[in-house]
Amino acid sequence: MAQEQIHDVAHLGHVELLTPKPNESLHFFKEILGMEEVARQGQSVYLRGWGDYQLYSLKLTESPQAGLGHIGMRTFSPAALERRALAIEKTGYGIGWAEQGDIDHGLTYRFTDPDGHRMEIYYEAVKYTPPAELRPSLKNQPQKNTARGANIRQLDHLNLLTSNVDADSQFMMEHVGFKMSEQLILDDGKRGAAWLHVTNKSYEIAYTSDKTGAKGRLHHLTFNVESREAVLRAADIFLDNGVYIEFAPSKHAANQTFFVYVYEPGGNRIELCAGGYLIFAPDWEPITWTQAERAKGQAWGNATVPTFHTYGTPAVE
Amino acid sequence: MAQEQIHDVAHLGHVELLTPKPNESLHFFKEILGMEEVARQGQSVYLRGWGDYQLYSLKLTESPQAGLGHIGMRTFSPAALERRALAIEKTGYGIGWAEQGDIDHGLTYRFTDPDGHRMEIYYEAVKYTPPAELRPSLKNQPQKNTARGANIRQLDHLNLLTSNVDADSQFMMEHVGFKMSEQLILDDGKRGAAWLHVTNKSYEIAYTSDKTGAKGRLHHLTFNVESREAVLRAADIFLDNGVYIEFAPSKHAANQTFFVYVYEPGGNRIELCAGGYLIFAPDWEPITWTQAERAKGQAWGNATVPTFHTYGTPAVE
Amino acid sequence: MAQEQIHDVAHLGHVELLTPKPNESLHFFKEILGMEEVARQGQSVYLRGWGDYQLYSLKLTESPQAGLGHIGMRTFSPAALERRALAIEKTGYGIGWAEQGDIDHGLTYRFTDPDGHRMEIYYEAVKYTPPAELRPSLKNQPQKNTARGANIRQLDHLNLLTSNVDADSQFMMEHVGFKMSEQLILDDGKRGAAWLHVTNKSYEIAYTSDKTGAKGRLHHLTFNVESREAVLRAADIFLDNGVYIEFAPSKHAANQTFFVYVYEPGGNRIELCAGGYLIFAPDWEPITWTQAERAKGQAWGNATVPTFHTYGTPAVE
Amino acid sequence: MAQEQIHDVAHLGHVELLTPKPNESLHFFKEILGMEEVARQGQSVYLRGWGDYQLYSLKLTESPQAGLGHIGMRTFSPAALERRALAIEKTGYGIGWAEQGDIDHGLTYRFTDPDGHRMEIYYEAVKYTPPAELRPSLKNQPQKNTARGANIRQLDHLNLLTSNVDADSQFMMEHVGFKMSEQLILDDGKRGAAWLHVTNKSYEIAYTSDKTGAKGRLHHLTFNVESREAVLRAADIFLDNGVYIEFAPSKHAANQTFFVYVYEPGGNRIELCAGGYLIFAPDWEPITWTQAERAKGQAWGNATVPTFHTYGTPAVE
Repeated sequence: MAQEQIHDVAHLGHVELLTPKPNESLHFFKEILGMEEVARQGQSVYLRGWGDYQLYSLKLTESPQAGLGHIGMRTFSPAALERRALAIEKTGYGIGWAEQGDIDHGLTYRFTDPDGHRMEIYYEAVKYTPPAELRPSLKNQPQKNTARGANIRQLDHLNLLTSNVDADSQFMMEHVGFKMSEQLILDDGKRGAAWLHVTNKSYEIAYTSDKTGAKGRLHHLTFNVESREAVLRAADIFLDNGVYIEFAPSKHAANQTFFVYVYEPGGNRIELCAGGYLIFAPDWEPITWTQAERAKGQAWGNATVPTFHTYGTPAVE
Repeated sequence: MAQEQIHDVAHLGHVELLTPKPNESLHFFKEILGMEEVARQGQSVYLRGWGDYQLYSLKLTESPQAGLGHIGMRTFSPAALERRALAIEKTGYGIGWAEQGDIDHGLTYRFTDPDGHRMEIYYEAVKYTPPAELRPSLKNQPQKNTARGANIRQLDHLNLLTSNVDADSQFMMEHVGFKMSEQLILDDGKRGAAWLHVTNKSYEIAYTSDKTGAKGRLHHLTFNVESREAVLRAADIFLDNGVYIEFAPSKHAANQTFFVYVYEPGGNRIELCAGGYLIFAPDWEPITWTQAERAKGQAWGNATVPTFHTYGTPAVE
Repeated sequence: MAQEQIHDVAHLGHVELLTPKPNESLHFFKEILGMEEVARQGQSVYLRGWGDYQLYSLKLTESPQAGLGHIGMRTFSPAALERRALAIEKTGYGIGWAEQGDIDHGLTYRFTDPDGHRMEIYYEAVKYTPPAELRPSLKNQPQKNTARGANIRQLDHLNLLTSNVDADSQFMMEHVGFKMSEQLILDDGKRGAAWLHVTNKSYEIAYTSDKTGAKGRLHHLTFNVESREAVLRAADIFLDNGVYIEFAPSKHAANQTFFVYVYEPGGNRIELCAGGYLIFAPDWEPITWTQAERAKGQAWGNATVPTFHTYGTPAVE
Repeated sequence: MAQEQIHDVAHLGHVELLTPKPNESLHFFKEILGMEEVARQGQSVYLRGWGDYQLYSLKLTESPQAGLGHIGMRTFSPAALERRALAIEKTGYGIGWAEQGDIDHGLTYRFTDPDGHRMEIYYEAVKYTPPAELRPSLKNQPQKNTARGANIRQLDHLNLLTSNVDADSQFMMEHVGFKMSEQLILDDGKRGAAWLHVTNKSYEIAYTSDKTGAKGRLHHLTFNVESREAVLRAADIFLDNGVYIEFAPSKHAANQTFFVYVYEPGGNRIELCAGGYLIFAPDWEPITWTQAERAKGQAWGNATVPTFHTYGTPAVE
């Protein structure tokens, strides 16, 4: 019989995004998405959504090329952090410990997945306390709703392009403790995509096969909003603010997420989402989509935009 | 100076739709769209939405081919009916008076537009009184909300394919009293589409150039629902009930209507819509879209599905 | 038989609101409601919603007391303006002509209703052209959606407290051209409230009996938003920004409007609304609510907040 | 340092509701809420929402009085079931094992909380396979969306009245593995309410002090819908179908749930909800509301309806 589930990583904590256009990108995340700036350090600005309970969920870092900096995940406890670090260390993908993580967290263990996406886990984290002007009216809300632009709520998930979906998803399941909710199995038997989760959400990290053969690329980073109507409203706002909408609002068949995809000025693909489903079944069996089913397009039959299958950051010449 | 506006036609009253699959079509309108059957006569079934104030808004008639039967419009008064009939009579497109219109209305004047779409105007109409089981809780609502399927509210508008957008739209403006809210002017200077209205809604009848050269065809018939979320919900319901979704929910640039398009079993294209805008300006100047603007697709930049440019009913071999 | 309807007033154009706290009120309308400032003149600031087609819909004027300044309405034509002015002149409620109306309109006729609420009608009006930074992406939208705060779309309607509902509503119907959509008839046979409209909306002006016996007071001024969800979102924003919510979001039985009521810093009651219904019937008979029905509260049975029956501006000691 | 969290109970599985009016109640859950009947046994009917992954989420049982039958919860594994049963057994609140649970689950351990609410835990459960007519279009959806009535998605949570909030919530946390998300601490220092969760949702079971001093009563049972708009739509449907709305749609301060409360024909209070927030923080500290804060009413300041503080089932004479 299968051993009991690993239950050590609590949730996605933050994502570092690289941008060659730091000012334009910052304007996008603050004014168009409505995030709040909480700190600056070196070439990085730290930002948060009104529903993020941690200090920040996005670290925006100036860089020659767009792409993923790293992904931070918080564990359930110091012991869980220790356990995961030990297990990852054995895989050879460990980078090592840092006494002091980024501005809000303590002891941190760094590693990569087999494809090279940089990750870190930590437990200790500063609890966010809003300044007076951002104090919410309801105690159970981390921050005042600033009602600016698309007004995103919080970090939701990300989708990583990979040269090997299998290797990456197995690594995340066996050593980090993710479970698979859905997958795409291609006609040649290979796994074309995998959606992985550690919470009741159906995914925090998705892996998609990178057709260019490149390694370590980002497909998209996603923040959630409160309703499908809020996604539509965001599209209206993107339209009026000259943001490039790559994929107009619609509904994914996989995970049933309602989405809109845009490119932030630095070139990274950003998704706003709402909806989807929660997984409660302890014996959930991954939903398997075939290549033919996937070719049907999105949930309501509309075609997937071609760039969605090829574009990622860093861009590949 | 321009003469004052004609103000004789109050609103779109009903549409007769032809179907070669009467049972399947009836099931679609009753069970999937949630309309109520109010009467049967000959080969026709009369249906209504919970928000329609008249007896019926849809007459569904068995016929060898799908397509438009006729369009009914109600005038503001008997005098207005008289005035319009007289004016139309002079154009040569009149068919003539009927003492008794369809099951709910009296004296009726019939005519066609230049392209041959059959129309009628009337003033006298039976006021709908719901039976006990359909009595609403609020007096200002025509009928109980039956909460069945996509649960459409009321007849909204229709889009007619025509061999001559100019001739038809001019006819409707000069003789029937419509005003133009928006138009598409092609690169060759021809009017490719025209949106016309008699109420504060921005269109009740749209004309689109029929690329097949056929005459008198229907592009689509539209019912409205209460919110954009209700359109999304309808798409979910269509998906789960095997209804063919031709054009997944999105937002038109023209008129800003939020839409979903399906084919009813008889073959007619049906739209559910929400949103758009009301026109209050007495000196509204038609919004003009160029061919290049139109080629950009829908409001959020997504491509228009190819069949949208060609398919109509009756289908052309 | 009744004469044909007067059809001279096209729509509500703007409302002047008085405030003893001009800076705080201005902050409310700009930052919390998301309106744009278009001009300043004397003690007044002119503001607009992104969906208002005219230059402004709100004139905010510093004054010792809160309350209504005046109501502006646009006619269908110069001739219609002339006709209405002539008719109103005869009633004795006329004030007179002004060559030049407020900043955006020309020849203007001023009058009051019997209770003394100041009104004006005009036809000539400057067409609003947005500056570069407020240019919308879609040509059929008057202004870019700035996505700030509750982000109201446009002026919707207002509710006037009156010492005589009958006198005021009769005046507006006979001489200005409004029609009655709904009314409240009290047990003593008196009309307690009347909802009046000139467009397909079911009301632009409502009169409610002022229990204090005062004259010329304002019950509330209303802007609309795009959906019921947008009203809920507005309430969330009001909550987090310390705006006093007098009546939490719910649905009126009368007119079925979905609402939220707040007090702007100057003391005037402001409503945001969505929903309701359009009137298409040329032979609409006013919906009559009894005192007992009205006592049941709102559409879903919740009680009306007590201050809703008493508070108005100017406040009565 | 605190020991690591118990992580044995996966989620709320089903609730048994007692009704003295089985036919009327069944009609309510099937036709008004839109649930599907899956089985009948003895005096019970088993029902499910389209989003419930298990065979059923509601067992409706004829009984002389309305109230709670029992609550079923599923564990993460057989070992987790064993662990919990052992721990509960020691408290003296155990009832014992049943080889065969209800129609869909196997080995079951039964117990009560200190106040006497009957509960059971199990791991083995039949996986729901929809019959042909209820097969969904998307593989990741348990059942076709039948689009009937308020069209609830799935079981969400329940609120139990108790003579001792402290005893019950401590029991659920120490022995069953719930965590506390929010609580009400009265002026006398007593805990007036506690919200408990085992998933990332902020509550599955809430305890509220029963002012009548009765034991084992139910405050309400809740199903969720997909959006706040869907809650409003449900209220419209309740209104038109003569369902008693006790508490019109609004937003709770606690947990920020958007709600509507009705009485089903048997007398039990039923809530439909949407919104709220997910808890990701492994070191979440319960939000504490004071009596004064609670007295302010709901999130937007509207008063709580008086019966909400007193009514429960079974009703107390």
